[in-house]
Amino acid sequence: MRITTVGLDADDTLWHNETIFRLTQERFRALMADVAAPEVLDARLAQVERRNLGLYGYGVKGFTLSLIETAMELTGGEPPGRFVAEILAAGREMLAHPVETLPGVDQALAELSETHRLVLITKGDLLHQEQKLAASGLGELFAAVEIVSEKDAATYARVFARHGTGPGEAAMCGNSLRSDVLPALEAGAFAAHIPYPLTWAHEMADPPGDHPRFAELAAISDLPAWVRNIR
Amino acid sequence: MRITTVGLDADDTLWHNETIFRLTQERFRALMADVAAPEVLDARLAQVERRNLGLYGYGVKGFTLSLIETAMELTGGEPPGRFVAEILAAGREMLAHPVETLPGVDQALAELSETHRLVLITKGDLLHQEQKLAASGLGELFAAVEIVSEKDAATYARVFARHGTGPGEAAMCGNSLRSDVLPALEAGAFAAHIPYPLTWAHEMADPPGDHPRFAELAAISDLPAWVRNIR
Repeated sequence: MRITTVGLDADDTLWHNETIFRLTQERFRALMADVAAPEVLDARLAQVERRNLGLYGYGVKGFTLSLIETAMELTGGEPPGRFVAEILAAGREMLAHPVETLPGVDQALAELSETHRLVLITKGDLLHQEQKLAASGLGELFAAVEIVSEKDAATYARVFARHGTGPGEAAMCGNSLRSDVLPALEAGAFAAHIPYPLTWAHEMADPPGDHPRFAELAAISDLPAWVRNIR
Repeated sequence: MRITTVGLDADDTLWHNETIFRLTQERFRALMADVAAPEVLDARLAQVERRNLGLYGYGVKGFTLSLIETAMELTGGEPPGRFVAEILAAGREMLAHPVETLPGVDQALAELSETHRLVLITKGDLLHQEQKLAASGLGELFAAVEIVSEKDAATYARVFARHGTGPGEAAMCGNSLRSDVLPALEAGAFAAHIPYPLTWAHEMADPPGDHPRFAELAAISDLPAWVRNIR
């Protein structure tokens, strides 16, 4: 078997995440309904998030701060206190939200972990990702966990060298073409894309086409067979 | 030489950190001067931070959210917009604050790195800690960087096993008795305490007394000799 190590993204690959952000964003739309039309609100929030990404990084805490900042901007700097209270509460609820693993995840990972070294590779708030992994019950299946601030080719080269036998014998699997697939391919690893119904605007990218080390899989239950068949 | 691996805390061990939090807190006191007396404000903030620690973890983003929450509580849920704006700005400035290494750090680390494997072990926001390390110019001296959500004995056992030859041949150095010294000793490592003039209330602890693997050092310039002399 060529592949020794399988990297797995977490959010929207192993468990729901973007859905929770979208629900919070809907709650934010309802809260701000008298202040801004939904499209205006969404556009402004996306702009604020993009501007803050270099400073806040990924995760719920930065998102919460960006929601407050957006509310400030759209209310002329004077949001009613209940807006701020509601946003703080929404952020806390996101952090405390129960983890729901996606269908087929438990079985696919249990199967793969018998023959391969599994490495969780994810962005986001450090503590929150660790808590979600613990709550998922999947922690025991992973040989290593890497919570990283950015997923680029250097990240995958480093992680697959540290926890495996290098990117040439590693496969990465995730829902984001931009973060999971393209940089892993660039690092020399194999990569499988398993789409999630929702994708954050910032994670959008074009698929790599007929790249020899790339596969598009319909579900994570297809992952073990794909990994086994890589020569 | 017995010690192969030296773990170093970052905030207030390699560079100023608590000072920046205190300056922000003073700015918060000035902002809220008409609302609450300084002692009341500080006590309430400490309470909010403690309550949020399990959800937010360590770092500037969680601190910023706790400042906003404290302002909410002390203004009956209706803070003037400029309070929120000022807190958001303060948080951003903390994240963008230049890194000032403490006296003697560059030389001590350059010296130690020639004979020992240096591992940075720190809490805080993932991206922010990486950015501070990059800005410090010290990154090249470290064989590994571990940004962790909690520093307990298990953390040190794991990190010194992964990046060294186990805790029995490792020494940890930092300004926090609670986070750097006591759990490292508990894991079986040696530990040096280098006090910083300020300590966050949450990091307070009693020194370990005359523990055979513990030393109190006046400055980081004493670290290389102490490490070399461990038998």
